Amino acid sequence: MEIAMPDTSTSAAYQETDRTVPARYRDRTSYDRALVHGILDAAYVCHLGFVRDGAPVVLPTLFGRVGERLYIHGSTGSRPLRAAGQADPGLPVCLTVTHVDGLVLARSAFHHSINFRSVVVHGVAHEVTDPQEKRTALNALVDHVVPGRSLDSRPPVAKELAATAVISLDLNEVSAKVRTGGPNDDAEDLALPHWAGVLPLAASYGAPIPSDDLDPAVAVPAYLTAR
Amino acid sequence: MEIAMPDTSTSAAYQETDRTVPARYRDRTSYDRALVHGILDAAYVCHLGFVRDGAPVVLPTLFGRVGERLYIHGSTGSRPLRAAGQADPGLPVCLTVTHVDGLVLARSAFHHSINFRSVVVHGVAHEVTDPQEKRTALNALVDHVVPGRSLDSRPPVAKELAATAVISLDLNEVSAKVRTGGPNDDAEDLALPHWAGVLPLAASYGAPIPSDDLDPAVAVPAYLTAR
Repeated sequence: MEIAMPDTSTSAAYQETDRTVPARYRDRTSYDRALVHGILDAAYVCHLGFVRDGAPVVLPTLFGRVGERLYIHGSTGSRPLRAAGQADPGLPVCLTVTHVDGLVLARSAFHHSINFRSVVVHGVAHEVTDPQEKRTALNALVDHVVPGRSLDSRPPVAKELAATAVISLDLNEVSAKVRTGGPNDDAEDLALPHWAGVLPLAASYGAPIPSDDLDPAVAVPAYLTAR
Repeated sequence: MEIAMPDTSTSAAYQETDRTVPARYRDRTSYDRALVHGILDAAYVCHLGFVRDGAPVVLPTLFGRVGERLYIHGSTGSRPLRAAGQADPGLPVCLTVTHVDGLVLARSAFHHSINFRSVVVHGVAHEVTDPQEKRTALNALVDHVVPGRSLDSRPPVAKELAATAVISLDLNEVSAKVRTGGPNDDAEDLALPHWAGVLPLAASYGAPIPSDDLDPAVAVPAYLTAR
């Protein structure tokens, strides 16, 4: 089977479509590839939506990115992965990633908000059947969690590859949405006595916890202490 | 219109259904109400899935909880909220919330994972048309971001209420999934030279940033400094 990788287009932006142009807040929406890649790569989980028996299902899952293609993996017994393998020509999905960067407190209840960065990807997921692409995908999934980690762990063996299903989703119909800055209170509310501003929020790492059965001679790798 | 609030059942657990019993990892799945409420209340955004033109859509959005009912709001021009108002008998949705608590590094690429807490709610969303329930819902949305904040901000006026659509989703078909602890490496991998363990991850708050136009006499409220 030929691995047809998506065009790594020289265009800096994704093409807008009916589904990626929002009804509101167009000024917060972007189609910039570098922005989209950055938001995706900074996230540990995505939320994958698909339709089962006519109803929507949204599940959190790990993912990896290789250029303009995303990969998701799971047990061969997993429902969406089975569905993607059986569906012809693939499984329609929507994959969404969101970071919450701050709580926005306005004088009015109405203008409360959050600062965030999100990416929404619409498309059709396909099962990855080529063994070489499957290995590439699984490395990308591990490296997405900890960059470079696939080189510092035991690679998958045949039995593990057989037990793992991988699906791919190309980045074609994609948009990012970003809100930054303070509250947008109405002019007549500015003198109200309520505090207004932003409470920033960020993910922070704790100290690495070694596995109970880890040989104490194995040091914490630099790629973890650097976080 | 009568406001039929859901049963605040005395049962400690949600009833299992075909959709909430997973194909795998049943030991990580729980139907405990207190656990579900805690996971929901600790999240600032949910991912709301619905079906549009036969395809799945997943959007991040704020939400609030009042007992066994969730509320989501948006502009009356927002697509899912319009759809929920027009759909009869409501809009089938799946609402999912996920916290990432740690990166799980195993000796084998195959056993890499993350520690997480998630809740998945299946159901049908309905537009909230009763003015009193709408006010309750909007207060819950503000208080979900900062508990008690609805009492320390200007309440919505008629024009704002009219511009805001609210939908409700009852907690009936609900499950939580939780992974904790270290990697589950295979016995034959334990002597490999790769570090194994957990890198904990948590949300942390920065110092509150007052709005540029805030009167310096307005102090940062205690409910923010306490975080």
